[in-house]
Amino acid sequence: MKIAQYESERGYFIGLDLDGSWINYSKASAAYYALTHDVSLLPRPTIETLLERGQFDVREFRAVGAFVKKHRLQPLVAMPREVLLRAPLVRPRKIIALGLNYALHVKEGSLTRPKEPVIFMKAGSSVIDPEEPIRIPRGLGRMDHEVELALVIGKQAKAVKRRDAYSYIAGYTICNDVTARALQTQDINNRYPWFRTKSFDTFTPLGPWIVTTDAIRQPVRLDIECRVNGRLRQHSNTRHLLFDIPTIIEFVSKHITLEPGDVISTGTPEGIGRIENGDTVVCRIQHIGELRNPVKYA
Amino acid sequence: MKIAQYESERGYFIGLDLDGSWINYSKASAAYYALTHDVSLLPRPTIETLLERGQFDVREFRAVGAFVKKHRLQPLVAMPREVLLRAPLVRPRKIIALGLNYALHVKEGSLTRPKEPVIFMKAGSSVIDPEEPIRIPRGLGRMDHEVELALVIGKQAKAVKRRDAYSYIAGYTICNDVTARALQTQDINNRYPWFRTKSFDTFTPLGPWIVTTDAIRQPVRLDIECRVNGRLRQHSNTRHLLFDIPTIIEFVSKHITLEPGDVISTGTPEGIGRIENGDTVVCRIQHIGELRNPVKYA
Repeated sequence: MKIAQYESERGYFIGLDLDGSWINYSKASAAYYALTHDVSLLPRPTIETLLERGQFDVREFRAVGAFVKKHRLQPLVAMPREVLLRAPLVRPRKIIALGLNYALHVKEGSLTRPKEPVIFMKAGSSVIDPEEPIRIPRGLGRMDHEVELALVIGKQAKAVKRRDAYSYIAGYTICNDVTARALQTQDINNRYPWFRTKSFDTFTPLGPWIVTTDAIRQPVRLDIECRVNGRLRQHSNTRHLLFDIPTIIEFVSKHITLEPGDVISTGTPEGIGRIENGDTVVCRIQHIGELRNPVKYA
Repeated sequence: MKIAQYESERGYFIGLDLDGSWINYSKASAAYYALTHDVSLLPRPTIETLLERGQFDVREFRAVGAFVKKHRLQPLVAMPREVLLRAPLVRPRKIIALGLNYALHVKEGSLTRPKEPVIFMKAGSSVIDPEEPIRIPRGLGRMDHEVELALVIGKQAKAVKRRDAYSYIAGYTICNDVTARALQTQDINNRYPWFRTKSFDTFTPLGPWIVTTDAIRQPVRLDIECRVNGRLRQHSNTRHLLFDIPTIIEFVSKHITLEPGDVISTGTPEGIGRIENGDTVVCRIQHIGELRNPVKYA
Protein backbone atom coordinates (compact mmCIF):
# COMPACT_ATOMS: atom_id res chain seq x y z
CA MET A 1 0.00 0.00 0.00
CA LYS A 2 1.02 3.61 -0.47
CA ILE A 3 0.59 6.26 2.22
CA ALA A 4 1.26 9.91 1.43
CA GLN A 5 0.92 13.31 3.02
CA TYR A 6 -0.93 16.10 1.27
CA GLU A 7 -1.74 19.68 1.92
CA SER A 8 -4.84 21.41 0.64
CA GLU A 9 -6.50 24.70 1.43
CA ARG A 10 -8.07 22.99 4.42
CA GLY A 11 -4.76 21.77 5.86
CA TYR A 12 -2.73 18.61 6.00
CA PHE A 13 -4.13 15.19 5.44
CA ILE A 14 -2.93 11.66 4.95
CA GLY A 15 -3.68 10.00 1.63
CA LEU A 16 -4.14 6.27 1.08
CA ASP A 17 -3.87 4.61 -2.30
CA LEU A 18 -7.09 2.62 -2.65
CA ASP A 19 -7.02 0.41 -5.75
CA GLY A 20 -5.02 2.95 -7.70
CA SER A 21 -6.76 6.14 -6.63
CA TRP A 22 -5.99 8.24 -3.60
CA ILE A 23 -8.49 8.83 -0.82
CA ASN A 24 -8.35 11.17 2.16
CA TYR A 25 -7.36 8.69 4.87
CA SER A 26 -7.59 11.33 7.61
CA LYS A 27 -11.32 11.72 6.94
CA ALA A 28 -11.95 8.05 6.24
CA SER A 29 -10.21 6.78 9.38
CA ALA A 30 -11.91 9.40 11.57
CA ALA A 31 -15.31 8.18 10.32
CA TYR A 32 -14.26 4.54 10.69
CA TYR A 33 -13.14 4.97 14.29
CA ALA A 34 -16.14 7.07 15.24
CA LEU A 35 -18.53 4.43 13.89
CA THR A 36 -16.74 1.22 14.80
CA HIS A 37 -14.76 2.05 17.94
CA ASP A 38 -16.86 4.85 19.48
CA VAL A 39 -13.73 7.00 19.68
CA SER A 40 -12.45 9.87 17.65
CA LEU A 41 -8.89 10.25 16.49
CA LEU A 42 -7.08 13.42 17.35
CA PRO A 43 -7.62 15.91 14.54
CA ARG A 44 -5.37 15.73 11.50
CA PRO A 45 -2.82 13.12 12.47
CA THR A 46 0.35 13.19 10.43
CA ILE A 47 2.21 10.08 9.32
CA GLU A 48 4.74 10.95 12.02
CA THR A 49 2.08 10.90 14.75
CA LEU A 50 0.61 7.63 13.41
CA LEU A 51 4.10 6.12 13.67
CA GLU A 52 4.73 7.53 17.15
CA ARG A 53 1.38 6.24 18.44
CA GLY A 54 1.80 2.78 16.93
CA GLN A 55 -1.12 3.44 14.54
CA PHE A 56 0.84 3.00 11.33
CA ASP A 57 -0.61 -0.42 10.69
CA VAL A 58 -1.31 -1.98 7.30
CA ARG A 59 -4.19 -4.03 8.72
CA GLU A 60 -5.86 -0.82 9.90
CA PHE A 61 -5.24 0.83 6.53
CA ARG A 62 -6.87 -2.17 4.85
CA ALA A 63 -9.81 -2.15 7.27
CA VAL A 64 -10.44 1.54 6.62
CA GLY A 65 -10.18 0.93 2.85
CA ALA A 66 -12.67 -1.94 3.04
CA PHE A 67 -15.03 0.20 5.15
CA VAL A 68 -14.90 2.99 2.54
CA LYS A 69 -15.69 0.58 -0.28
CA LYS A 70 -18.40 -1.34 1.57
CA HIS A 71 -20.28 1.84 2.48
CA ARG A 72 -19.55 3.59 -0.82
CA LEU A 73 -17.91 6.54 0.92
CA GLN A 74 -15.55 7.30 -1.97
CA PRO A 75 -17.29 10.57 -2.92
CA LEU A 76 -16.93 11.80 0.67
CA VAL A 77 -13.26 10.92 0.99
CA ALA A 78 -12.15 11.85 -2.51
CA MET A 79 -9.02 13.95 -2.92
CA PRO A 80 -9.62 17.71 -3.07
CA ARG A 81 -8.89 19.20 -6.48
CA GLU A 82 -5.92 21.34 -5.48
CA VAL A 83 -3.42 19.46 -3.41
CA LEU A 84 0.26 19.63 -2.71
CA LEU A 85 2.17 16.42 -2.08
CA ARG A 86 4.31 16.78 1.04
CA ALA A 87 7.25 14.68 2.21
CA PRO A 88 5.87 11.56 3.95
CA LEU A 89 7.86 12.61 7.03
CA VAL A 90 8.23 16.35 7.24
CA ARG A 91 10.79 16.50 10.04
CA PRO A 92 12.22 13.09 10.98
CA ARG A 93 13.99 12.98 14.35
CA LYS A 94 16.84 10.90 12.99
CA ILE A 95 17.99 10.52 9.40
CA ILE A 96 20.88 8.08 9.46
CA ALA A 97 22.52 7.72 6.08
CA LEU A 98 25.12 5.30 4.79
CA GLY A 99 28.22 6.21 2.88
CA LEU A 100 30.13 3.84 0.61
CA ASN A 101 27.44 1.16 0.39
CA TYR A 102 27.67 0.24 -3.31
CA ALA A 103 30.96 -1.19 -4.62
CA LEU A 104 30.99 0.84 -7.86
CA HIS A 105 30.28 4.04 -5.92
CA VAL A 106 33.20 3.28 -3.60
CA LYS A 107 35.32 2.82 -6.73
CA GLU A 108 34.21 6.06 -8.40
CA GLY A 109 35.27 7.90 -5.22
CA SER A 110 38.66 6.11 -5.26
CA LEU A 111 37.92 4.94 -1.74
CA THR A 112 38.32 1.63 0.07
CA ARG A 113 35.47 -0.76 0.63
CA PRO A 114 34.53 -0.40 4.31
CA LYS A 115 34.57 -3.34 6.74
CA GLU A 116 31.50 -2.11 8.59
CA PRO A 117 28.62 0.19 7.59
CA VAL A 118 29.72 3.83 7.46
CA ILE A 119 26.96 5.97 8.98
CA PHE A 120 26.37 9.67 9.35
CA MET A 121 23.41 11.88 10.23
CA LYS A 122 21.50 14.39 8.12
CA ALA A 123 19.58 17.19 9.87
CA GLY A 124 15.78 16.76 9.87
CA SER A 125 15.53 20.45 8.95
CA SER A 126 17.02 19.67 5.53
CA VAL A 127 13.96 17.66 4.37
CA ILE A 128 11.89 19.03 1.49
CA ASP A 129 8.78 17.89 -0.35
CA PRO A 130 8.45 16.42 -3.83
CA GLU A 131 8.59 19.24 -6.42
CA GLU A 132 10.10 21.66 -3.89
CA PRO A 133 13.32 23.27 -5.17
CA ILE A 134 16.72 22.07 -4.02
CA ARG A 135 18.46 25.37 -3.23
CA ILE A 136 22.16 25.30 -4.04
CA PRO A 137 24.38 28.05 -2.58
CA ARG A 138 26.59 29.90 -5.05
CA GLY A 139 30.34 29.87 -4.80
CA LEU A 140 30.73 26.57 -2.97
CA GLY A 141 31.65 24.43 -5.97
CA ARG A 142 30.08 21.21 -7.06
CA MET A 143 26.74 20.02 -5.59
CA ASP A 144 25.61 16.43 -6.29
CA HIS A 145 22.48 14.29 -6.44
CA GLU A 146 22.53 10.90 -4.70
CA VAL A 147 19.47 8.65 -5.10
CA GLU A 148 18.96 6.26 -2.17
CA LEU A 149 16.45 3.73 -0.92
CA ALA A 150 15.22 4.94 2.48
CA LEU A 151 13.72 2.79 5.23
CA VAL A 152 11.13 4.20 7.61
CA ILE A 153 11.35 2.67 11.08
CA GLY A 154 8.01 1.47 12.45
CA LYS A 155 8.78 0.58 16.05
CA GLN A 156 11.53 1.04 18.61
CA ALA A 157 14.55 -0.98 17.54
CA LYS A 158 17.29 -1.71 20.05
CA ALA A 159 19.93 -4.42 19.56
CA VAL A 160 17.85 -6.03 16.80
CA LYS A 161 19.10 -9.24 15.23
CA ARG A 162 19.43 -9.63 11.45
CA ARG A 163 16.66 -12.19 11.24
CA ASP A 164 14.14 -9.83 12.89
CA ALA A 165 15.22 -6.68 11.12
CA TYR A 166 12.45 -6.40 8.51
CA SER A 167 9.77 -6.44 11.21
CA TYR A 168 11.01 -3.04 12.44
CA ILE A 169 10.44 -1.39 9.07
CA ALA A 170 7.15 0.42 8.42
CA GLY A 171 7.90 1.02 4.76
CA TYR A 172 10.16 2.38 2.06
CA THR A 173 10.58 5.71 0.39
CA ILE A 174 13.15 7.58 -1.74
CA CYS A 175 15.80 9.94 -0.39
CA ASN A 176 17.96 12.22 -2.50
CA ASP A 177 21.04 12.69 -0.32
CA VAL A 178 22.10 16.00 -1.90
CA THR A 179 25.72 16.75 -1.09
CA ALA A 180 27.98 19.79 -1.33
CA ARG A 181 30.63 17.63 -2.98
CA ALA A 182 33.54 20.06 -3.24
CA LEU A 183 33.24 20.95 0.44
CA GLN A 184 32.71 17.32 1.40
CA THR A 185 35.88 16.24 -0.36
CA GLN A 186 37.74 18.97 1.51
CA ASP A 187 36.18 17.92 4.84
CA ILE A 188 36.98 14.26 4.24
CA ASN A 189 40.58 15.08 3.37
CA ASN A 190 40.80 17.06 6.63
CA ARG A 191 39.33 14.05 8.48
CA TYR A 192 36.39 16.24 9.50
CA PRO A 193 32.77 15.11 9.99
CA TRP A 194 30.48 14.41 7.02
CA PHE A 195 27.56 16.23 8.57
CA ARG A 196 27.42 19.79 7.28
CA THR A 197 27.70 19.19 3.54
CA LYS A 198 24.77 16.77 3.74
CA SER A 199 22.52 18.92 5.94
CA PHE A 200 22.19 22.26 4.18
CA ASP A 201 18.57 23.42 4.03
CA THR A 202 16.68 21.61 1.19
CA PHE A 203 19.41 18.93 0.83
CA THR A 204 17.09 16.01 1.70
CA PRO A 205 14.23 15.62 -0.80
CA LEU A 206 12.10 12.77 0.58
CA GLY A 207 9.13 10.96 -0.94
CA PRO A 208 6.95 10.77 -2.86
CA TRP A 209 5.21 8.50 -0.32
CA ILE A 210 5.78 5.48 1.88
CA VAL A 211 5.23 2.05 0.36
CA THR A 212 4.42 -0.37 3.17
CA THR A 213 6.50 -3.50 3.61
CA ASP A 214 3.73 -5.88 2.48
CA ALA A 215 4.12 -4.52 -1.07
CA ILE A 216 7.85 -5.25 -1.38
CA ARG A 217 9.33 -8.72 -1.39
CA GLN A 218 12.20 -9.55 0.96
CA PRO A 219 15.12 -9.46 0.51
CA VAL A 220 14.62 -6.13 -1.21
CA ARG A 221 15.68 -6.14 -4.89
CA LEU A 222 14.67 -2.92 -6.56
CA ASP A 223 15.89 -1.04 -9.61
CA ILE A 224 17.10 2.40 -8.59
CA GLU A 225 17.95 5.31 -10.85
CA CYS A 226 18.44 9.05 -11.03
CA ARG A 227 17.90 11.25 -14.07
CA VAL A 228 18.87 14.87 -14.48
CA ASN A 229 16.92 16.72 -17.19
CA GLY A 230 15.79 13.32 -18.45
CA ARG A 231 19.31 11.97 -18.83
CA LEU A 232 20.20 8.80 -16.92
CA ARG A 233 22.92 9.48 -14.34
CA GLN A 234 22.63 6.70 -11.78
CA HIS A 235 21.27 3.21 -12.40
CA SER A 236 21.64 0.15 -10.22
CA ASN A 237 19.65 -2.29 -8.13
CA THR A 238 19.45 -2.46 -4.35
CA ARG A 239 20.69 -6.07 -4.50
CA HIS A 240 24.13 -4.46 -4.94
CA LEU A 241 24.07 -2.93 -1.45
CA LEU A 242 27.36 -3.90 0.21
CA PHE A 243 25.65 -4.06 3.60
CA ASP A 244 22.10 -5.29 3.18
CA ILE A 245 19.07 -4.01 5.07
CA PRO A 246 19.17 -6.56 7.93
CA THR A 247 22.90 -5.93 8.43
CA ILE A 248 22.38 -2.17 8.55
CA ILE A 249 19.58 -2.40 11.12
CA GLU A 250 21.54 -4.83 13.27
CA PHE A 251 24.64 -2.62 13.09
CA VAL A 252 22.94 0.68 13.87
CA SER A 253 20.56 -0.58 16.56
CA LYS A 254 23.36 -2.27 18.50
CA HIS A 255 24.34 1.05 20.09
CA ILE A 256 21.83 3.58 18.75
CA THR A 257 18.14 3.01 19.45
CA LEU A 258 15.94 3.55 16.40
CA GLU A 259 12.52 5.06 16.99
CA PRO A 260 9.26 5.09 15.01
CA GLY A 261 9.60 7.64 12.22
CA ASP A 262 13.39 7.50 12.06
CA VAL A 263 14.77 7.16 8.55
CA ILE A 264 17.73 5.12 7.36
CA SER A 265 18.97 6.02 3.90
CA THR A 266 20.87 3.04 2.58
CA GLY A 267 23.53 4.72 0.43
CA THR A 268 23.85 5.74 -3.19
CA PRO A 269 24.99 3.72 -6.21
CA GLU A 270 27.57 4.86 -8.78
CA GLY A 271 26.89 7.71 -11.15
CA ILE A 272 26.76 10.64 -8.73
CA GLY A 273 27.07 13.94 -10.52
CA ARG A 274 26.70 17.66 -10.45
CA ILE A 275 23.37 19.48 -10.31
CA GLU A 276 23.03 23.06 -11.46
CA ASN A 277 20.58 25.92 -11.32
CA GLY A 278 17.66 25.13 -13.64
CA ASP A 279 18.10 21.35 -13.58
CA THR A 280 15.33 18.89 -12.73
CA VAL A 281 16.36 15.81 -10.74
CA VAL A 282 14.17 12.72 -10.83
CA CYS A 283 14.96 9.83 -8.49
CA ARG A 284 13.08 6.63 -9.23
CA ILE A 285 12.89 3.31 -7.40
CA GLN A 286 10.97 0.30 -8.70
CA HIS A 287 7.68 -0.40 -6.88
CA ILE A 288 8.03 2.88 -4.96
CA GLY A 289 7.68 5.74 -7.41
CA GLU A 290 9.54 8.84 -8.42
CA LEU A 291 10.75 11.87 -6.51
CA ARG A 292 11.17 14.97 -8.66
CA ASN A 293 12.77 18.25 -7.60
CA PRO A 294 13.88 21.30 -9.54
CA VAL A 295 17.24 22.87 -8.68
CA LYS A 296 17.54 26.60 -8.04
CA TYR A 297 20.09 28.95 -6.56
CA ALA A 298 19.68 29.58 -2.81
CA MET B 1 16.67 32.49 35.81
CA LYS B 2 16.80 28.72 35.90
CA ILE B 3 14.22 26.52 34.19
CA ALA B 4 14.25 22.75 34.75
CA GLN B 5 12.18 19.72 33.97
CA TYR B 6 11.07 17.35 36.70
CA GLU B 7 9.14 14.17 36.96
CA SER B 8 7.07 13.18 39.96
CA GLU B 9 4.47 10.50 40.57
CA ARG B 10 1.97 12.83 38.92
CA GLY B 11 3.97 13.28 35.73
CA TYR B 12 6.28 15.79 34.15
CA PHE B 13 6.40 19.41 35.15
CA ILE B 14 8.52 22.45 34.52
CA GLY B 15 10.32 23.97 37.50
CA LEU B 16 11.25 27.62 37.89
CA ASP B 17 13.87 28.84 40.31
CA LEU B 18 12.11 31.57 42.32
CA ASP B 19 14.57 33.42 44.60
CA GLY B 20 16.59 30.29 45.20
CA SER B 21 13.80 27.75 45.64
CA TRP B 22 12.07 25.78 42.90
CA ILE B 23 8.39 26.11 42.20
CA ASN B 24 6.13 24.08 39.92
CA TYR B 25 5.94 26.44 36.94
CA SER B 26 3.48 24.21 35.11
CA LYS B 27 0.89 24.72 37.86
CA ALA B 28 1.77 28.37 38.48
CA SER B 29 1.61 29.39 34.82
CA ALA B 30 -1.67 27.52 34.28
CA ALA B 31 -3.24 29.45 37.18
CA TYR B 32 -1.70 32.71 35.97
CA TYR B 33 -3.06 32.33 32.44
CA ALA B 34 -6.48 31.17 33.62
CA LEU B 35 -6.84 34.19 35.90
CA THR B 36 -5.16 36.89 33.83
CA HIS B 37 -5.70 35.85 30.20
CA ASP B 38 -8.93 33.83 30.44
CA VAL B 39 -7.19 30.98 28.62
CA SER B 40 -5.77 27.71 29.75
CA LEU B 41 -2.46 26.32 28.62
CA LEU B 42 -2.40 22.87 27.14
CA PRO B 43 -1.81 20.35 29.90
CA ARG B 44 1.76 19.70 31.03
CA PRO B 45 3.79 21.64 28.52
CA THR B 46 7.42 20.60 28.33
CA ILE B 47 10.30 23.04 27.88
CA GLU B 48 10.42 21.78 24.28
CA THR B 49 6.80 22.75 23.66
CA LEU B 50 7.29 26.16 25.31
CA LEU B 51 10.20 26.73 22.93
CA GLU B 52 8.27 25.52 19.88
CA ARG B 53 5.28 27.72 20.70
CA GLY B 54 7.38 30.83 21.37
CA GLN B 55 6.39 30.72 25.07
CA PHE B 56 9.90 30.38 26.45
CA ASP B 57 10.04 33.99 27.54
CA VAL B 58 11.90 35.37 30.54
CA ARG B 59 9.38 38.22 30.91
CA GLU B 60 6.60 35.64 31.20
CA PHE B 61 8.61 33.59 33.70
CA ARG B 62 9.13 36.77 35.76
CA ALA B 63 5.45 37.72 35.53
CA VAL B 64 4.39 34.28 36.75
CA GLY B 65 6.95 34.45 39.57
CA ALA B 66 5.68 37.90 40.64
CA PHE B 67 2.08 36.62 40.50
CA VAL B 68 2.99 33.67 42.77
CA LYS B 69 4.66 35.96 45.30
CA LYS B 70 1.99 38.66 45.27
CA HIS B 71 -0.81 36.17 45.88
CA ARG B 72 1.23 33.99 48.27
CA LEU B 73 0.71 30.89 46.15
CA GLN B 74 4.02 29.31 47.15
CA PRO B 75 2.39 26.51 49.21
CA LEU B 76 0.24 25.55 46.21
CA VAL B 77 3.10 25.47 43.72
CA ALA B 78 5.78 23.99 45.99
CA MET B 79 7.87 21.11 44.64
CA PRO B 80 6.52 17.64 45.43
CA ARG B 81 8.70 15.74 47.86
CA GLU B 82 9.82 13.01 45.50
CA VAL B 83 11.03 14.34 42.19
CA LEU B 84 13.43 13.31 39.51
CA LEU B 85 15.34 15.97 37.61
CA ARG B 86 15.05 15.33 33.87
CA ALA B 87 17.15 16.72 31.03
CA PRO B 88 15.88 20.22 30.17
CA LEU B 89 15.33 18.95 26.61
CA VAL B 90 14.52 15.27 26.56
CA ARG B 91 14.81 14.71 22.81
CA PRO B 92 16.22 17.72 20.92
CA ARG B 93 15.62 17.65 17.16
CA LYS B 94 19.15 18.80 16.41
CA ILE B 95 22.23 18.57 18.56
CA ILE B 96 25.03 20.18 16.61
CA ALA B 97 28.37 19.81 18.33
CA LEU B 98 31.75 21.36 17.63
CA GLY B 99 35.03 19.52 17.42
CA LEU B 100 38.43 21.13 17.91
CA ASN B 101 37.18 24.37 19.44
CA TYR B 102 39.78 24.89 22.22
CA ALA B 103 43.45 25.30 21.21
CA LEU B 104 44.84 23.07 23.96
CA HIS B 105 42.33 20.32 23.10
CA VAL B 106 43.40 20.50 19.44
CA LYS B 107 46.99 20.14 20.68
CA GLU B 108 46.29 17.13 22.93
CA GLY B 109 44.76 15.38 19.91
CA SER B 110 47.84 16.24 17.81
CA LEU B 111 45.51 17.86 15.31
CA THR B 112 45.60 21.08 13.32
CA ARG B 113 43.69 24.17 14.35
CA PRO B 114 40.71 24.37 11.98
CA LYS B 115 40.08 27.40 9.77
CA GLU B 116 36.30 27.17 10.19
CA PRO B 117 34.09 25.62 12.88
CA VAL B 118 34.07 21.81 12.64
CA ILE B 119 30.52 20.59 13.24
CA PHE B 120 28.87 17.21 13.60
CA MET B 121 25.52 15.93 14.82
CA LYS B 122 24.68 13.82 17.86
CA ALA B 123 21.44 11.78 17.83
CA GLY B 124 18.65 13.17 20.04
CA SER B 125 18.05 9.60 21.22
CA SER B 126 21.41 9.68 23.04
CA VAL B 127 20.26 12.30 25.58
CA ILE B 128 20.03 11.26 29.24
CA ASP B 129 19.00 13.00 32.45
CA PRO B 130 21.19 14.20 35.31
CA GLU B 131 22.09 11.22 37.56
CA GLU B 132 21.13 8.74 34.84
CA PRO B 133 23.93 6.26 34.13
CA ILE B 134 26.18 6.62 31.10
CA ARG B 135 26.19 3.06 29.72
CA ILE B 136 29.52 2.10 28.17
CA PRO B 137 29.64 -0.98 25.95
CA ARG B 138 32.32 -3.55 26.78
CA GLY B 139 35.06 -4.47 24.36
CA LEU B 140 35.11 -1.23 22.38
CA GLY B 141 38.14 0.32 24.09
CA ARG B 142 38.42 3.75 25.61
CA MET B 143 35.30 5.87 26.28
CA ASP B 144 35.78 9.56 27.20
CA HIS B 145 34.02 12.42 28.98
CA GLU B 146 33.91 15.82 27.26
CA VAL B 147 32.38 18.73 29.19
CA GLU B 148 30.88 21.42 26.93
CA LEU B 149 28.88 24.61 27.17
CA ALA B 150 25.62 24.05 25.27
CA LEU B 151 23.40 26.74 23.76
CA VAL B 152 19.65 26.25 23.50
CA ILE B 153 18.17 27.97 20.44
CA GLY B 154 15.12 30.12 21.22
CA LYS B 155 13.84 31.07 17.78
CA GLN B 156 14.30 30.14 14.15
CA ALA B 157 17.77 31.22 13.05
CA LYS B 158 18.58 31.45 9.36
CA ALA B 159 21.57 33.33 7.97
CA VAL B 160 22.02 35.17 11.27
CA LYS B 161 24.74 37.81 11.52
CA ARG B 162 27.32 37.76 14.34
CA ARG B 163 25.97 40.93 15.93
CA ASP B 164 22.47 39.46 16.28
CA ALA B 165 23.53 35.97 17.34
CA TYR B 166 22.86 36.21 21.09
CA SER B 167 19.23 37.17 20.50
CA TYR B 168 18.60 33.68 19.06
CA ILE B 169 19.71 31.94 22.25
CA ALA B 170 17.09 30.99 24.86
CA GLY B 171 19.67 29.90 27.41
CA TYR B 172 22.63 27.77 28.37
CA THR B 173 23.11 24.32 29.77
CA ILE B 174 25.83 21.69 30.11
CA CYS B 175 26.46 18.85 27.68
CA ASN B 176 28.76 15.91 28.29
CA ASP B 177 29.73 14.85 24.77
CA VAL B 178 30.61 11.26 25.70
CA THR B 179 32.72 9.68 22.97
CA ALA B 180 33.81 6.15 22.10
CA ARG B 181 37.37 7.40 21.69
CA ALA B 182 39.12 4.29 20.39
CA LEU B 183 36.49 3.82 17.68
CA GLN B 184 36.45 7.53 16.91
CA THR B 185 40.21 7.61 16.37
CA GLN B 186 39.82 4.66 14.02
CA ASP B 187 36.93 6.36 12.15
CA ILE B 188 38.86 9.63 11.84
CA ASN B 189 41.91 7.83 10.49
CA ASN B 190 39.65 6.14 7.93
CA ARG B 191 38.20 9.59 7.04
CA TYR B 192 34.79 8.33 8.14
CA PRO B 193 32.02 10.39 9.77
CA TRP B 194 32.19 11.40 13.46
CA PHE B 195 28.57 10.54 14.10
CA ARG B 196 28.30 7.02 15.52
CA THR B 197 30.88 7.22 18.31
CA LYS B 198 29.14 10.33 19.65
CA SER B 199 25.57 9.02 19.41
CA PHE B 200 25.49 5.74 21.30
CA ASP B 201 22.50 5.55 23.65
CA THR B 202 23.20 7.53 26.89
CA PHE B 203 26.18 9.38 25.34
CA THR B 204 24.65 12.85 25.76
CA PRO B 205 24.03 13.74 29.41
CA LEU B 206 22.33 17.15 29.31
CA GLY B 207 21.41 19.55 32.11
CA PRO B 208 20.92 20.10 34.93
CA TRP B 209 18.66 22.96 33.73
CA ILE B 210 18.60 25.91 31.36
CA VAL B 211 19.95 29.22 32.61
CA THR B 212 18.29 31.99 30.62
CA THR B 213 20.45 34.52 28.78
CA ASP B 214 19.60 37.42 31.12
CA ALA B 215 21.63 35.70 33.85
CA ILE B 216 24.85 35.42 31.84
CA ARG B 217 26.89 38.39 30.70
CA GLN B 218 27.92 38.65 27.04
CA PRO B 219 30.39 37.77 25.71
CA VAL B 220 30.17 34.54 27.66
CA ARG B 221 33.16 33.97 30.00
CA LEU B 222 32.53 30.98 32.20
CA ASP B 223 34.79 28.60 34.09
CA ILE B 224 34.22 25.07 32.85
CA GLU B 225 35.44 21.84 34.42
CA CYS B 226 34.96 18.10 34.59
CA ARG B 227 35.79 15.88 37.54
CA VAL B 228 35.83 12.10 37.61
CA ASN B 229 35.43 10.59 41.09
CA GLY B 230 36.19 14.04 42.51
CA ARG B 231 39.47 14.41 40.62
CA LEU B 232 39.85 17.39 38.29
CA ARG B 233 40.25 16.26 34.67
CA GLN B 234 39.22 19.24 32.53
CA HIS B 235 39.46 22.89 33.54
CA SER B 236 39.23 25.91 31.30
CA ASN B 237 37.12 28.96 30.58
CA THR B 238 34.77 29.49 27.65
CA ARG B 239 36.75 32.65 26.72
CA HIS B 240 39.23 30.17 25.20
CA LEU B 241 36.73 29.01 22.55
CA LEU B 242 38.53 29.24 19.20
CA PHE B 243 35.26 30.13 17.47
CA ASP B 244 33.12 32.21 19.80
CA ILE B 245 29.35 31.91 20.16
CA PRO B 246 28.39 34.58 17.58
CA THR B 247 30.79 33.06 15.04
CA ILE B 248 29.35 29.57 15.58
CA ILE B 249 25.76 30.74 15.13
CA GLU B 250 26.63 32.76 12.04
CA PHE B 251 28.53 29.83 10.55
CA VAL B 252 25.92 27.14 11.21
CA SER B 253 22.84 29.21 10.33
CA LYS B 254 24.29 30.28 7.00
CA HIS B 255 23.24 26.96 5.41
CA ILE B 256 21.44 25.06 8.19
CA THR B 257 18.35 26.62 9.76
CA LEU B 258 18.32 26.40 13.55
CA GLU B 259 14.97 25.88 15.21
CA PRO B 260 13.63 26.50 18.73
CA GLY B 261 14.88 23.74 21.00
CA ASP B 262 17.90 22.89 18.88
CA VAL B 263 21.12 22.55 20.86
CA ILE B 264 24.61 23.66 19.89
CA SER B 265 27.36 22.17 22.02
CA THR B 266 30.38 24.45 21.71
CA GLY B 267 33.23 21.96 22.02
CA THR B 268 35.35 20.58 24.84
CA PRO B 269 38.53 21.97 26.41
CA GLU B 270 41.72 19.99 27.06
CA GLY B 271 41.87 17.21 29.61
CA ILE B 272 39.58 14.64 27.98
CA GLY B 273 40.02 11.23 29.53
CA ARG B 274 38.75 7.74 30.01
CA ILE B 275 35.64 6.85 32.01
CA GLU B 276 35.13 3.40 33.45
CA ASN B 277 32.42 1.30 35.00
CA GLY B 278 31.75 2.59 38.54
CA ASP B 279 33.04 6.15 37.91
CA THR B 280 31.05 9.28 38.65
CA VAL B 281 31.47 12.15 36.19
CA VAL B 282 30.63 15.69 37.27
CA CYS B 283 30.61 18.46 34.67
CA ARG B 284 30.42 21.97 36.10
CA ILE B 285 30.05 25.37 34.46
CA GLN B 286 30.13 28.66 36.37
CA HIS B 287 26.70 30.32 36.79
CA ILE B 288 25.00 27.24 35.31
CA GLY B 289 25.45 24.38 37.73
CA GLU B 290 26.67 20.81 37.73
CA LEU B 291 25.69 17.76 35.74
CA ARG B 292 26.49 14.49 37.50
CA ASN B 293 26.24 11.00 35.97
CA PRO B 294 27.45 7.62 37.13
CA VAL B 295 29.11 5.31 34.60
CA LYS B 296 27.99 1.69 34.23
CA TYR B 297 28.46 -1.09 31.73
CA ALA B 298 25.81 -1.27 29.04
